[in-house]
Amino acid sequence: MILLDVADETSPRADDSLGARSRGKHSRVGRRGSDSVSASVSDSDSVSDSVSASVSDSVSDSLHAAKSWPCYLCSMLTIHAPEDASREAALESLSRRGEADLARVEPAVREILAAVRAGGDAAVSELAERFEGRRPERIWLGSERIAEGAALAPAEVRRDLQAAADRIRRYHEHQREVGFRYEEDGIALGMRVRPIRAVGVYAPGGKARYPSTVLMTAVPAQVAGVPRVVLATPRPTPELLAAAQIAGVHEVVDAGGAQAIGALAYGTQSVARVEKIVGPGNIYVACAKRLVFGLVDIDSIAGPSEILVVADESADPAVVAADLLSQAEHDEDAYPLLVTTSAAMAEAVNAALVAQLEGLPRRAVAEISLRERGACFLVRDRAEAARLADRLAPEHLALAVERAEELLEGIGAAGAVFLGHQTPEAAGDYAAGPSHVLPTGGATRYASPLGVYDFIVRTSLVRYSREALEAQGDLLERLARLEGLEAHARAVAIRRREP
Amino acid sequence: MILLDVADETSPRADDSLGARSRGKHSRVGRRGSDSVSASVSDSDSVSDSVSASVSDSVSDSLHAAKSWPCYLCSMLTIHAPEDASREAALESLSRRGEADLARVEPAVREILAAVRAGGDAAVSELAERFEGRRPERIWLGSERIAEGAALAPAEVRRDLQAAADRIRRYHEHQREVGFRYEEDGIALGMRVRPIRAVGVYAPGGKARYPSTVLMTAVPAQVAGVPRVVLATPRPTPELLAAAQIAGVHEVVDAGGAQAIGALAYGTQSVARVEKIVGPGNIYVACAKRLVFGLVDIDSIAGPSEILVVADESADPAVVAADLLSQAEHDEDAYPLLVTTSAAMAEAVNAALVAQLEGLPRRAVAEISLRERGACFLVRDRAEAARLADRLAPEHLALAVERAEELLEGIGAAGAVFLGHQTPEAAGDYAAGPSHVLPTGGATRYASPLGVYDFIVRTSLVRYSREALEAQGDLLERLARLEGLEAHARAVAIRRREP
Repeated sequence: MILLDVADETSPRADDSLGARSRGKHSRVGRRGSDSVSASVSDSDSVSDSVSASVSDSVSDSLHAAKSWPCYLCSMLTIHAPEDASREAALESLSRRGEADLARVEPAVREILAAVRAGGDAAVSELAERFEGRRPERIWLGSERIAEGAALAPAEVRRDLQAAADRIRRYHEHQREVGFRYEEDGIALGMRVRPIRAVGVYAPGGKARYPSTVLMTAVPAQVAGVPRVVLATPRPTPELLAAAQIAGVHEVVDAGGAQAIGALAYGTQSVARVEKIVGPGNIYVACAKRLVFGLVDIDSIAGPSEILVVADESADPAVVAADLLSQAEHDEDAYPLLVTTSAAMAEAVNAALVAQLEGLPRRAVAEISLRERGACFLVRDRAEAARLADRLAPEHLALAVERAEELLEGIGAAGAVFLGHQTPEAAGDYAAGPSHVLPTGGATRYASPLGVYDFIVRTSLVRYSREALEAQGDLLERLARLEGLEAHARAVAIRRREP
Repeated sequence: MILLDVADETSPRADDSLGARSRGKHSRVGRRGSDSVSASVSDSDSVSDSVSASVSDSVSDSLHAAKSWPCYLCSMLTIHAPEDASREAALESLSRRGEADLARVEPAVREILAAVRAGGDAAVSELAERFEGRRPERIWLGSERIAEGAALAPAEVRRDLQAAADRIRRYHEHQREVGFRYEEDGIALGMRVRPIRAVGVYAPGGKARYPSTVLMTAVPAQVAGVPRVVLATPRPTPELLAAAQIAGVHEVVDAGGAQAIGALAYGTQSVARVEKIVGPGNIYVACAKRLVFGLVDIDSIAGPSEILVVADESADPAVVAADLLSQAEHDEDAYPLLVTTSAAMAEAVNAALVAQLEGLPRRAVAEISLRERGACFLVRDRAEAARLADRLAPEHLALAVERAEELLEGIGAAGAVFLGHQTPEAAGDYAAGPSHVLPTGGATRYASPLGVYDFIVRTSLVRYSREALEAQGDLLERLARLEGLEAHARAVAIRRREP
């Protein structure tokens, strides 16, 4: 157990003083064995789940087994040269980083969900007492209470959050869908688009309290026109409530972990159930979301945060190091990855990491991430860099190269791409515009950033005229009979016979 | 155990001679206890999973407990009048019809998935022998073998499938997304859209062999531009292979059930793994998809097929009955539901159902569905009809009323809507255009029909100019420090300091 001593401006409580942060979809879903249920269930993304360093983690083991480059200053990033026999094993291990094993927490999560389903508000309250040592006065906060809490946040904070929200909103307005209608051969066809009616947004508790994550999840829902957005988070701070208010959140549920997911999915006396739950959380939250999937929709199962920087000779190693650190400081399990065509760059970045770690408040977290999860791959040329980036399919991809757009052509899978030397990934975390809630663990191969499209539902529309049905009737009846579905054929035929 | 004796033009094998059909996302996920693992695993949507009538099912029990209207000819549809005290219980029970309990098959499915993961082709072959009594000569078929098989289908069948595919393709071309790019204050922003690179489409085996389902899943993938579409289905027939060829399927995997899902998700010696798996299947397929979710993406967990017909006095009861039967013949577990403002209509539809059941080849299946799952709700007016339809959130919604579009305004949740008296739901199953793979069990509240949007992946693009970063830098640094993420702030600051 490694204890972290981290200054934290936003942490209001002594019992929040441990733990790494998580952002976006960065729930802890790795294969780690040392979490204690009682602590982890209490408050997502906090305490034991994060501070137990993952030295026994199989990904990390395999990365280290693959180390074949001489350490530089006890090498921050393990460097893998193209000719290394072990390189493929390291890449393969990283390619499998997204495989989540939620089974070990599933019994506890099932028990919590069943308790909330049966017991409602009282059960949520009891679970807060059991896991967090508190009995919330009320679980549900309406718009008045949200406004009261938000008013306690400093005016400058509210102004900054508003400025960020405005940018996020403008970006997501480009994602609006309006559906379509057209007519073909007497058949009126269409696709209607409507917002999902009620959405739950989970925001982690503990010290991993990011007002920015509230904006990044709730603003796209607001742009989609969702009439009821419910934020669930334990012990909401004034900053979180300010972000909620600015993002148009309608209700707040003061609950964390699996019990919060249960309250959103099943409803309680004070909380009406929602149709979809999105947002990051620890392994208990991830497991609970998976278990309620089907009753409600969820966004994808998420793992720790990742950045892959591709750097050529034009990059500044200090800037590359700063970007890697901005990801590494999130979480001991974060993946700071570097791909470069230059061995000199690899060494210079490692040196810059050592230098910049000095004096970093979250140094302990960042250093574990760099040493245990970090890796640098030397490549022969840009084409190989693109292939490698594509294979790793990172959440964040920073292209610190010349002609970045051209390089990107060869990379199919990435959540958000930061192009050129002047684009810090951190800008994307706050105010560039796109949501920072992104697929992790290689899921960018098939999943998209959280967006307006996650908060809409589509309906197909069909209207035949009598003439259209007559024209298409024979085809329809033949196809139905080909499949042995006579009643289908007759449902067509009866309309053709009727006067 | 009820044995069905059903004529089936497409069934090539004696051991396929039992079983109901399923279409779209109609896997069996209800709470039923009589399936035998060995039979159900062998071939999805066939044999024991379907023919064991769900008399003990809780939804059906509750619907019957709620029966309060005098039976009409041993009433096909149970009629619930507005004043019935039991009506709310019936509605509530129907509202929960989507709650799938996959737990009872999970151990068997986990075992199958593990075997396929470890054993590859040999394991898939062994499982086919164990569950289907056959050893496939080869599991993987490339385009040549697909073409060879497709050539065995009658020319008229191929022509009809081509005609249907053309319509489906034209509809889905309206769903194409191109992404966007724009610049704001020196920040270049965008969203790139690309097809998912490899997609698996599952099509049920047994007698539930629908060439139309191959078109309805593979054509949207083709329109999205997916470069590798893999159809998995046990013992593909010439008709299925013809549909596959027409829909641009690149490979076929001759495997069924959970082992097919394992082969697609993990890959084998002969089958390269895919990124996403879609399509209908029985409870084993549904459970396997859920378990591999995270390693690959899946479409939503599905249940039996449903239709809700809203009929006013302008409807023809015989036509309404024909539409209900076209859903009821799919599956004993299908839900044929009627909402009407007219008690006379309710009785007339029940009488028409009795009459039309006579001589229907799949009468036994349809009758069980009507009696066990069917229901008719009498409502006072159109507004109440809309509220009820919205609450039930059906897969298929047929609006057999005057001014159907107006009524639809009040209904938020429905998969596909069939407007007016001339639009049979069966047209939507074959050739109207929209995919017939639709959310079931009330999932239309949050999920959409299968579409092009299911086969694309989006990437956020961000590029700052030096000036833009300078202009936004203070805001970014303040927000990072508000969250205690100093390395984030420094990744911005270092770029502002550099020359």
